[in-house]
Amino acid sequence: MSEPVAIIGATGALGFGLALRWGVAGVPVVIGSRDAARAQEAAERARQAVPDAHVEGYENAEAATKAEVVVLSVPFRNQSETLTNLKTVLQPHQLVVDATVPLAAAVSGRATRMLGVWQGSAAQQAQEMVPDGVRVVSALHTVSAASCSDLDHRLDEDVLVCGNHREDKERVMALIDRIEGLRSVDAGRLEMARITESLTALLISINARHKTHAGIKITGL
Amino acid sequence: MSEPVAIIGATGALGFGLALRWGVAGVPVVIGSRDAARAQEAAERARQAVPDAHVEGYENAEAATKAEVVVLSVPFRNQSETLTNLKTVLQPHQLVVDATVPLAAAVSGRATRMLGVWQGSAAQQAQEMVPDGVRVVSALHTVSAASCSDLDHRLDEDVLVCGNHREDKERVMALIDRIEGLRSVDAGRLEMARITESLTALLISINARHKTHAGIKITGL
Repeated sequence: MSEPVAIIGATGALGFGLALRWGVAGVPVVIGSRDAARAQEAAERARQAVPDAHVEGYENAEAATKAEVVVLSVPFRNQSETLTNLKTVLQPHQLVVDATVPLAAAVSGRATRMLGVWQGSAAQQAQEMVPDGVRVVSALHTVSAASCSDLDHRLDEDVLVCGNHREDKERVMALIDRIEGLRSVDAGRLEMARITESLTALLISINARHKTHAGIKITGL
Repeated sequence: MSEPVAIIGATGALGFGLALRWGVAGVPVVIGSRDAARAQEAAERARQAVPDAHVEGYENAEAATKAEVVVLSVPFRNQSETLTNLKTVLQPHQLVVDATVPLAAAVSGRATRMLGVWQGSAAQQAQEMVPDGVRVVSALHTVSAASCSDLDHRLDEDVLVCGNHREDKERVMALIDRIEGLRSVDAGRLEMARITESLTALLISINARHKTHAGIKITGL
């Protein structure tokens, strides 16, 4: 049994896929959604897909109180609003895993283009917005939502993890490594998120040309 | 026998490594350097390392007249000056393969950080600087210079290729695929170079943590 993980935005494709994968791995999952009924419905769907899974559903703010590690898997368009709503809820011991990608699609631009975020990256924006003492780790941008939520698809790729504290990254990496087929790789400080986030746009460009759901791997490790 | 390739800046580690690898693959190589004597000396070293290789050395501007595909492998600090010097030499049928990375190291910043290039990327700056009719393809940023120039090291990684014309990319990809252990991947339009160039900074950050010469691979192709 692992520590539980809360996934804010887990009714979205990536978040729900992660809930399934962690469910398979025996990690207790708390699904968060803006709407409690939708969260409960998603949890029910997850339990049907993975009968052994420990999955519950709550409204986002309540979900965020149920685990020390809180994955933020929302569209960039909603990141700031979501974090504002969590401001009075998140506690100093908690860890936010930001998976947000500032694709230009958020402002009806192309999904192969990035928006410039004043703080450098969505993860650094998240770090600025969370209450004092809450620390942000950036991860999970390159895992295809479609592949992740299809349990028949065998994952085989790396997840780049950025953060300013080694112990935070190790905690997140341990959770990621619980998912079969994913290998976590420490990619450096949180500021490197401006590069790792942009890999989503790169993979979308590659997907368009190769009709696939690409992922990435680091060689030489 | 393949079409020849000229490498501008081939006395540097990556350029020289590429000369060796193409030499092994039977691709005729023209080494360019700012100094003709250094270029000839590098060509001599390459022929000693790879006895069968067809390698010659010339001053950059002359080297650039010897092949239709011209790889630009110079530090970002020198990219603009080098292209200015090639302005009267490059002809409309030629293809420039830009491998430049605008690392902050160019202005004594960190090698894990990028400079913002007004045009979007070093490759787009190159496209702006070359004479009309010369087209730029962006590639080869993630191949470790140390690994590439060590012929005992077995390469096994991908090379992301960006450009605005499919036929240009196919020509460059055919050359890259001649090198054993490298697989070229079409990553989209030239503007995607702003992401592929930044992968060098990402790999440098990963290398620092993992004491390696990392490369990248795209999964799912």
